[in-house]
Amino acid sequence: MSYKDILSAAGLSASDLSGGTLTVQTPVDGSEIAQLAVHDVSTANAMIEKSHAAFLVWRSVPAPRRGEFVRLLGEELRRQKQALGALVTLECGKILQEGLGEVQEMIDICDFAVGLSRQLYGLTIASERPGHSMRETWHPMGVCGVITAFNFPVAPWCWNAALALVCGDPVIWKPSEKTPLTALAVQKICESVRAEFGEDAPEGLTQVLIGERDLGEALTAHKNVALISATGSVPMGRAVAADMSKRLGRTILELGGNNAMIVAPSADLEMALRAIVFSAVGTAGQRCTTLRRLIVHEDVYDALVPRLVTAYRGLPIGDPLEDGTLVGPLIDAQALAAMDAALETARGEGGTVHGGGQALRATHANAAYAHPAIVEMPEQSEIMHHETFAPILYVVRYRELDEAIALQNAVPQGLSSCIFSTDIRETEYFLSAAGSDCGIANVNIGPSGAEIGGAFGGEKDTGGGRESGSDAWKAYMRRQANTVNYSRELPLAQGIRFDI
Amino acid sequence: MSYKDILSAAGLSASDLSGGTLTVQTPVDGSEIAQLAVHDVSTANAMIEKSHAAFLVWRSVPAPRRGEFVRLLGEELRRQKQALGALVTLECGKILQEGLGEVQEMIDICDFAVGLSRQLYGLTIASERPGHSMRETWHPMGVCGVITAFNFPVAPWCWNAALALVCGDPVIWKPSEKTPLTALAVQKICESVRAEFGEDAPEGLTQVLIGERDLGEALTAHKNVALISATGSVPMGRAVAADMSKRLGRTILELGGNNAMIVAPSADLEMALRAIVFSAVGTAGQRCTTLRRLIVHEDVYDALVPRLVTAYRGLPIGDPLEDGTLVGPLIDAQALAAMDAALETARGEGGTVHGGGQALRATHANAAYAHPAIVEMPEQSEIMHHETFAPILYVVRYRELDEAIALQNAVPQGLSSCIFSTDIRETEYFLSAAGSDCGIANVNIGPSGAEIGGAFGGEKDTGGGRESGSDAWKAYMRRQANTVNYSRELPLAQGIRFDI
Amino acid sequence: MSYKDILSAAGLSASDLSGGTLTVQTPVDGSEIAQLAVHDVSTANAMIEKSHAAFLVWRSVPAPRRGEFVRLLGEELRRQKQALGALVTLECGKILQEGLGEVQEMIDICDFAVGLSRQLYGLTIASERPGHSMRETWHPMGVCGVITAFNFPVAPWCWNAALALVCGDPVIWKPSEKTPLTALAVQKICESVRAEFGEDAPEGLTQVLIGERDLGEALTAHKNVALISATGSVPMGRAVAADMSKRLGRTILELGGNNAMIVAPSADLEMALRAIVFSAVGTAGQRCTTLRRLIVHEDVYDALVPRLVTAYRGLPIGDPLEDGTLVGPLIDAQALAAMDAALETARGEGGTVHGGGQALRATHANAAYAHPAIVEMPEQSEIMHHETFAPILYVVRYRELDEAIALQNAVPQGLSSCIFSTDIRETEYFLSAAGSDCGIANVNIGPSGAEIGGAFGGEKDTGGGRESGSDAWKAYMRRQANTVNYSRELPLAQGIRFDI
Amino acid sequence: MSYKDILSAAGLSASDLSGGTLTVQTPVDGSEIAQLAVHDVSTANAMIEKSHAAFLVWRSVPAPRRGEFVRLLGEELRRQKQALGALVTLECGKILQEGLGEVQEMIDICDFAVGLSRQLYGLTIASERPGHSMRETWHPMGVCGVITAFNFPVAPWCWNAALALVCGDPVIWKPSEKTPLTALAVQKICESVRAEFGEDAPEGLTQVLIGERDLGEALTAHKNVALISATGSVPMGRAVAADMSKRLGRTILELGGNNAMIVAPSADLEMALRAIVFSAVGTAGQRCTTLRRLIVHEDVYDALVPRLVTAYRGLPIGDPLEDGTLVGPLIDAQALAAMDAALETARGEGGTVHGGGQALRATHANAAYAHPAIVEMPEQSEIMHHETFAPILYVVRYRELDEAIALQNAVPQGLSSCIFSTDIRETEYFLSAAGSDCGIANVNIGPSGAEIGGAFGGEKDTGGGRESGSDAWKAYMRRQANTVNYSRELPLAQGIRFDI
Repeated sequence: MSYKDILSAAGLSASDLSGGTLTVQTPVDGSEIAQLAVHDVSTANAMIEKSHAAFLVWRSVPAPRRGEFVRLLGEELRRQKQALGALVTLECGKILQEGLGEVQEMIDICDFAVGLSRQLYGLTIASERPGHSMRETWHPMGVCGVITAFNFPVAPWCWNAALALVCGDPVIWKPSEKTPLTALAVQKICESVRAEFGEDAPEGLTQVLIGERDLGEALTAHKNVALISATGSVPMGRAVAADMSKRLGRTILELGGNNAMIVAPSADLEMALRAIVFSAVGTAGQRCTTLRRLIVHEDVYDALVPRLVTAYRGLPIGDPLEDGTLVGPLIDAQALAAMDAALETARGEGGTVHGGGQALRATHANAAYAHPAIVEMPEQSEIMHHETFAPILYVVRYRELDEAIALQNAVPQGLSSCIFSTDIRETEYFLSAAGSDCGIANVNIGPSGAEIGGAFGGEKDTGGGRESGSDAWKAYMRRQANTVNYSRELPLAQGIRFDI
Repeated sequence: MSYKDILSAAGLSASDLSGGTLTVQTPVDGSEIAQLAVHDVSTANAMIEKSHAAFLVWRSVPAPRRGEFVRLLGEELRRQKQALGALVTLECGKILQEGLGEVQEMIDICDFAVGLSRQLYGLTIASERPGHSMRETWHPMGVCGVITAFNFPVAPWCWNAALALVCGDPVIWKPSEKTPLTALAVQKICESVRAEFGEDAPEGLTQVLIGERDLGEALTAHKNVALISATGSVPMGRAVAADMSKRLGRTILELGGNNAMIVAPSADLEMALRAIVFSAVGTAGQRCTTLRRLIVHEDVYDALVPRLVTAYRGLPIGDPLEDGTLVGPLIDAQALAAMDAALETARGEGGTVHGGGQALRATHANAAYAHPAIVEMPEQSEIMHHETFAPILYVVRYRELDEAIALQNAVPQGLSSCIFSTDIRETEYFLSAAGSDCGIANVNIGPSGAEIGGAFGGEKDTGGGRESGSDAWKAYMRRQANTVNYSRELPLAQGIRFDI
Repeated sequence: MSYKDILSAAGLSASDLSGGTLTVQTPVDGSEIAQLAVHDVSTANAMIEKSHAAFLVWRSVPAPRRGEFVRLLGEELRRQKQALGALVTLECGKILQEGLGEVQEMIDICDFAVGLSRQLYGLTIASERPGHSMRETWHPMGVCGVITAFNFPVAPWCWNAALALVCGDPVIWKPSEKTPLTALAVQKICESVRAEFGEDAPEGLTQVLIGERDLGEALTAHKNVALISATGSVPMGRAVAADMSKRLGRTILELGGNNAMIVAPSADLEMALRAIVFSAVGTAGQRCTTLRRLIVHEDVYDALVPRLVTAYRGLPIGDPLEDGTLVGPLIDAQALAAMDAALETARGEGGTVHGGGQALRATHANAAYAHPAIVEMPEQSEIMHHETFAPILYVVRYRELDEAIALQNAVPQGLSSCIFSTDIRETEYFLSAAGSDCGIANVNIGPSGAEIGGAFGGEKDTGGGRESGSDAWKAYMRRQANTVNYSRELPLAQGIRFDI
Repeated sequence: MSYKDILSAAGLSASDLSGGTLTVQTPVDGSEIAQLAVHDVSTANAMIEKSHAAFLVWRSVPAPRRGEFVRLLGEELRRQKQALGALVTLECGKILQEGLGEVQEMIDICDFAVGLSRQLYGLTIASERPGHSMRETWHPMGVCGVITAFNFPVAPWCWNAALALVCGDPVIWKPSEKTPLTALAVQKICESVRAEFGEDAPEGLTQVLIGERDLGEALTAHKNVALISATGSVPMGRAVAADMSKRLGRTILELGGNNAMIVAPSADLEMALRAIVFSAVGTAGQRCTTLRRLIVHEDVYDALVPRLVTAYRGLPIGDPLEDGTLVGPLIDAQALAAMDAALETARGEGGTVHGGGQALRATHANAAYAHPAIVEMPEQSEIMHHETFAPILYVVRYRELDEAIALQNAVPQGLSSCIFSTDIRETEYFLSAAGSDCGIANVNIGPSGAEIGGAFGGEKDTGGGRESGSDAWKAYMRRQANTVNYSRELPLAQGIRFDI
């Protein structure tokens, strides 16, 4: 399939793709695939107003009916999975298997949200006063701004949007300026769903803002944006949090990760090996949940690490649209440069680097393919506390489990973590209050690849937000505590007497 | 009982009360009751370190055992209810019935937290992968800083501390500099409970910081304070939020309220009258949930408002320690001045003021007793959008329910609200997504006097935090999503294939 | 559309419909539409064995994957809604609008169950012992036998089956011998879904047993049927309960109702009128939730009841497949005879009967069309304590709400109930612990027409079972409490010492 | 302490203990300690009527106030722990440590229930209809009959009563005729609490029925007993279930167990050894959760079983009131005879018996002390499928985990189970849908000693009931689904049109 065919299959016409000032290049070969028009701040503000108007309608549409919108969205995504998956690959460079997997996540969260639309459970609560009933209900909150990053161009939008829509909140999406095309394609799907759904779905229910950081700032600045859900770097997250703190607005922050795996002596090393490679080099190391640190017990170090180095050498690097490729390109040349710099620093801190450096220079000179790197470190040095968005895996040794957990927890980020061990005393301890300090802690699987049924997100510099499953939906709603006095008396709580 | 007896009955000795630079005056008559030593920032930091050390122990004490600590605390509060209630009255000026009611809230939340200590429920979740189990657990989070205001000097600490302690978090309390004595008295109770509890309860489990704003800033600045729960003004809350956003720390904010009651034509006016007076003048109008705005249907305005004015005239103003008093003093002269200023502004905006002005000037020249005021306003003018911490009740008319709700929602604050109506079509609409935008919405009771079983807090400028009942405890813990692979395969989520 | 066309559109071929001994007549005109083969007990036992074998496979298929089966079922039902709805009407005689509504309920519960398949939440629980973790998980239980009644020939199966399948339980369906065709049509849909789904779905996942009571007894007798969910009469339910008590098997019982509406002075009588007619004559009075008793305040009696009698006179009785018909036939001549007998008894107990008697005798001599009846009773006499499955509405007067509630609660059944009142003091009291004793209690809507999001079922002779929404799914699973000791110590609960 | 002192310390006076026809003997030495008056059926019926009258009052007392009653009960039990624990030992023969542990369980469940009294959470649910709100509330159900067994004479009553009382249900207790004294002592505590509590607690809130099976039948027969919670044998449970099925009443059944432990090759054998001995000989093998079957991997059999036999030989058998005793008497001579018979049968089925036979014959001729027995069996023969209420531990070998699980699941009972293994792949599999079929499944602790925070109970012949923690409280309440239409329209669910 040509790039043109991919774009066209995803519903993007020539007129969508030209005439603007934002150049979109595919990381696959660096070629330009679109020149998009960008929005300015006044357009953003108009969109917010429209979205707020939509909110005033949508909040009173019964939730199960809102769920029907999301069900239709899921069905449409099922139909367009192949086309949208290919566009994801073309625009962000992840291999097609992962592009399809990302669309599958969108579908999964839609299914989940449809069921949720007949729940959105609040509580009825026993009251201490006779003739009183208490309950707590969850109401739509307002416009939800969604800021996403290039590495997962579509799924995080859907984690947010599927829940937000069911919860009664319209959505305005500010995708990465590196991956606007997938956002446009998804918005087209939304509009077709809206047409199918009928009049209950107001205009402006979902919208897309194409452009740079100023548009994100327009969202954080506007009082009618009730919630910002932002995925990206820690500095971006801090900026959003600071802006929102001024108006006491709500945020869901999904920021950086610096995810580790502990490999214990009892681990199944075959499984560990597979899990490490997938977690560390999948999406070319550009997932927030990418495995970046490997903490290996000294007794199994020699049985594992050399095999890992060998496995890395055999990884098929290449065009992510082609079958058999496991490692596609980095998003751009800056990413490659950052990887080089990190490896250089690691060497300076005593590390032994295996792999690294540009790949496919001959055939893909304008793209940023990299050889994934393993770096054996003498200890957890400074560079290991940073998240470099590239396929670098640092490896250190440990002797006692408490030491390994301390290493795992010593970084500022708190997204994901895992242990490979078959010893339940170790694994449950790792999951306990004294174990991993991350939002995700797995056993015998890697740190990435969460299912949508759980709440996704992390602690510390990762920002504390939760998306997707469990009760993450509550972040999109406002909670209201109600006490109804149906008696003809007026008793006070806590037994207070106050007689006038 | 003399003031000295009250102080002594609450466990405060002469040495506790003298020798420092912070003058504590009772609002009852303006006399000085203590000169307290204040802490400096370096002491605060040392306390935080001690608290963090306590955390590392306390987090691994089983939660039901932590609950036992809180149970003992509740029992001790039961024993000292009278003494502590009187001290509350002495220090902040609320009438004794309310002082006792505040201690009762402390007791109630302890009971609730004890039961919670065998719950702290996470979820087990169905996994999409064979041989995998998913769950979500809640773990202790770290040091919890609690900042409280003068008007509820002890209960909000306990709402936070009872939950935090059960959740595994030590607590550092920064009370208002206007009400440090009640904090010291409570800390003495905590220490006696710690002694009774035995070695599991580490030193530094609860601590009190006496002083000014710099101590609050020490808490927000320190990375080892995982959570700040702050009760107070909107500007204070914004400052806390901004500080915490820099390090992506967590907050629970309980800020200002500007609470309204809608009185509909079908209301039981007798009940409404009683509810209005208690809600508007209780605690001399210095509750965050004080009724500040009355939105009355024009058909019942004349049947209600004149009676209200009459009832106000008969309110017993006086020494809050004495039986029969319903209106005690404001906290200080500034509060009285602010009340005067607000009434002046209201007059300027067209209001007719009933009441207002200093009371008991003859007998209590150094105290700030005020005549509660009713202000009939021609419309909801600018002054009505502000929270003045004093017993001022603004009254406006409405004709249609939607108009009343719009008035109710038009202010920046979003704490509490209520409707008096016997018509379920009105009351349920008021509680619906299109109704009140507050965190609390009541029917046929006033906006104040929440039970501890519900989640307490509000939206918009009120800060969005929730304390006390329902699942408010989750704010004191970190959530961890776990996937355990107990199979001998390594399937990927979303059906992704990645074969090395 | 001819009957033949309806049968054929629903996927039933000539060979399906002939050659057996069970004659199926349509209540529309009494004509025979099929001669079905019936199963014997040994076939039933073989089916149970096959179902159990399916269970051993299905329980280990991940729940979200099981949910995908139910999603496909829902999609197929969407496609066949018109055809299946018409067959429902043809076979049980309810009007087409209701036939379609019944299929819509099937679709709704499928949507709900799909979301549920990523939940099936158990709990993680705080343990009192250090180094221990507690949780509670829900596991598939085994074969689920579903016994349904003629009046809702398909929806109740789906309420059970959608949940059971997601919960990991195969289903064996014993439909009413009066409505086997709809069951066969649904089973064909299931088989087509199973083919589409692929190999994870074992043979025998859903099965249908055609025949009489002996087949139901085969289900209750067999130890491999873990759960019987039975909808029908109270005597049937008692027999199932007695049989299952012998082997301590589990039941969900949805038995008779004798549902009342209280009409209070403040009621919107227009709305009440519409609600009464729909609830009392819909499905020709043959719903378990049909309104059978009207308890009217004496002050509005005269404004309501005569209008009701007039409305009844104008009801279009006729072929349920035709547009505009609101009252279709009773299921058979016995039902008509039972209605006549009940009316006769009511007259004997002092009742004044409006309506009643056979309708359309000229054109539909072999069918059992009835004129819906209103019976004004002097008090709640003996006949009113019985459920007659026909469109009879008894009317009595009341003066005080407590009296009305006592009348409402005085019958043995406890399924559904409602009040029409706009006074929240009355409506909340009706919903309180001192109010209705039914499993369903509504305000300002009739007793029928529950949404699938709530738990459906009733108390007392209604049998106590719950189906459909909320946590009704738990009845289809077994609960397992787990304590995992991951420490190297063995502390005992309750602080017991036992040293060997 | 003399027996007299124990009886007196527990509040039982001479007049309580004499004058009746029911002889109570202590199993400690077989001596008579009381002659109690027994109730007849007509007295039982009168008690039920009184209890029902109490229900009509208690159901409207706010739940947190009901919780206060249970809090006071817990406090009183704390005060009387020593005295009541000794009486438990005297009356049922378990060692004092366990007697005290049983009272501690009572205290724990009171704490839990107090917290619950401000929860009793129902749900608010999203409705599909505009202008409608849905919720589900839990209401008091009625009189709760509690039937308990001799082996846990007080704790199971309290598991039921603490929840039932908080849920609004009065309790009538029918203790075992072998242990009526502890019931009388507890009832005295309840009456003193009722006096302290004040007028809200109606007479007859808790009552005790002393006598035989006819009293249990009086409870099952009376329509005003809404719920029977029965602990005891499988035949007793079947009888209760059959009786209740006649009137479709509710039951909680806690019947027999036949609990196994699997010891895997990776187990910590030291811990396993301690756990086995405590689980198998504690309470002289007379717990429903007693370990009865040991399924040992052949690779560790020889390292474990001989040590176990040795440990058994050294167990201190003797007066349970004395410090150091670990094995007290069986309840009576019949129990000893049943143990002998079971061992004889086991021998006949190829078993090698270690231990067994009467102990302390010389000093305690009238008591039934037994040597705990280990029986090595060649396979899981017939006798192993039965629960003999005595300290017999059958041991069999296994090779594959699936085989061990199949053995574990092959018995009719389904209460408790455990595995000792440090391999998480084994332990999680044991806890999975394909693992243990019991209500309790533990890892690295024995089958007994559940904490009150989890739901206690089992599957299959164990009866399916759940008590104590999690959502077990729901069994004591009736669920009510509410839909409130607050609009001025009357839309129907499922989109049905029905226009009159």
